[in-house]
Amino acid sequence: MMQLNISEINNLDKRYKTNLINSLSGFKSANLIGTKDNKGNENLTIISSAVHIGADPATMGFIFRPNIVPRHTYENILETKSFTVNHVSSSFFEKAHQTSARYEREQSEFEEVGLTPEYIEPIFAPFVLESPLKIGLSLVEHYDIKFNPTHFIIGKIEYIQCDKESIDSEGRLNLEGYDGVCVSGLDSYHKTTLLKTLPYAKSK
Amino acid sequence: MMQLNISEINNLDKRYKTNLINSLSGFKSANLIGTKDNKGNENLTIISSAVHIGADPATMGFIFRPNIVPRHTYENILETKSFTVNHVSSSFFEKAHQTSARYEREQSEFEEVGLTPEYIEPIFAPFVLESPLKIGLSLVEHYDIKFNPTHFIIGKIEYIQCDKESIDSEGRLNLEGYDGVCVSGLDSYHKTTLLKTLPYAKSK
Repeated sequence: MMQLNISEINNLDKRYKTNLINSLSGFKSANLIGTKDNKGNENLTIISSAVHIGADPATMGFIFRPNIVPRHTYENILETKSFTVNHVSSSFFEKAHQTSARYEREQSEFEEVGLTPEYIEPIFAPFVLESPLKIGLSLVEHYDIKFNPTHFIIGKIEYIQCDKESIDSEGRLNLEGYDGVCVSGLDSYHKTTLLKTLPYAKSK
Repeated sequence: MMQLNISEINNLDKRYKTNLINSLSGFKSANLIGTKDNKGNENLTIISSAVHIGADPATMGFIFRPNIVPRHTYENILETKSFTVNHVSSSFFEKAHQTSARYEREQSEFEEVGLTPEYIEPIFAPFVLESPLKIGLSLVEHYDIKFNPTHFIIGKIEYIQCDKESIDSEGRLNLEGYDGVCVSGLDSYHKTTLLKTLPYAKSK
């Protein structure tokens, strides 16, 4: 059994600690965030920090560490208020991962990794043509976290696109139907197999 | 192809919209949050909104919708500053899901669903004995989201426990090694299969 107290956690080797702490939240979503600045430079970055905020109004949240890689994405969202979220499937997860490399603002990650920007009115930011589930959002709130150099942003969902067969009659997305992937830690990608859809829990 | 603009999203049937919007972030983690109030009442709730914040200092974030079910958990965290995060594995995901039912403050979800509280010094809040990966945290920040009746809390990681075999030599947790599960939407549980661990991405 491994047991680490706070001083043992603090004293871990930097790389080991980064891998371990990034693993602790459990399985994470794999989404590509598409943005464009007002000069027309497109940006694309993979993110594993999407979180459901509320269904009505429909909103999602995201953690950004702008000092690390997705800085252009964060700046573009503040500048234009527009961004897209595109689910990653097993057919292009390696290209999606490659967007986490450090590129210049003038470089389009779409081009660099071999994915295709797609524009859908009235959303300003580019979607990922290859993605099976596309969401267009507008920025509504952002918070600077005090304890870490981290930002939390909240987007209002303004557009959703997917195949009709990907949604069941009650509104559930079948992420396995389009081979959606999930992430653990910083770099491990997984496919999934449904165990069970459980009924709404009631106290007995 | 299904395409929904913002007014079509707003006009969706309530239950359909709840299922769909809860699916949009992609696969989510399955964690049990353990707390105890100052009178000794234990509380346990499943949450799919854990998000990595930073590795140094080691921190995690969580979205709470206190008007809905995990209200006691949220109140206990504000009161005691202490909580635990316990990964859910396939051997007890149905019990974990049952914690989302509405119980009174005096009812312990541990007892109601058949899981075992475990205390590990110096963490005040109870862990879940059955869980393969246990994290003890203290509250460091909380934010009230303006756009939704939702709270965002940040915890500092003060304790980690798991089997030694669950961590590789570089610090990566092998969530599949202990049959960790992930969630889609509100009610669907999945097991995973590793596709690939990718190298750190560099621009070419």
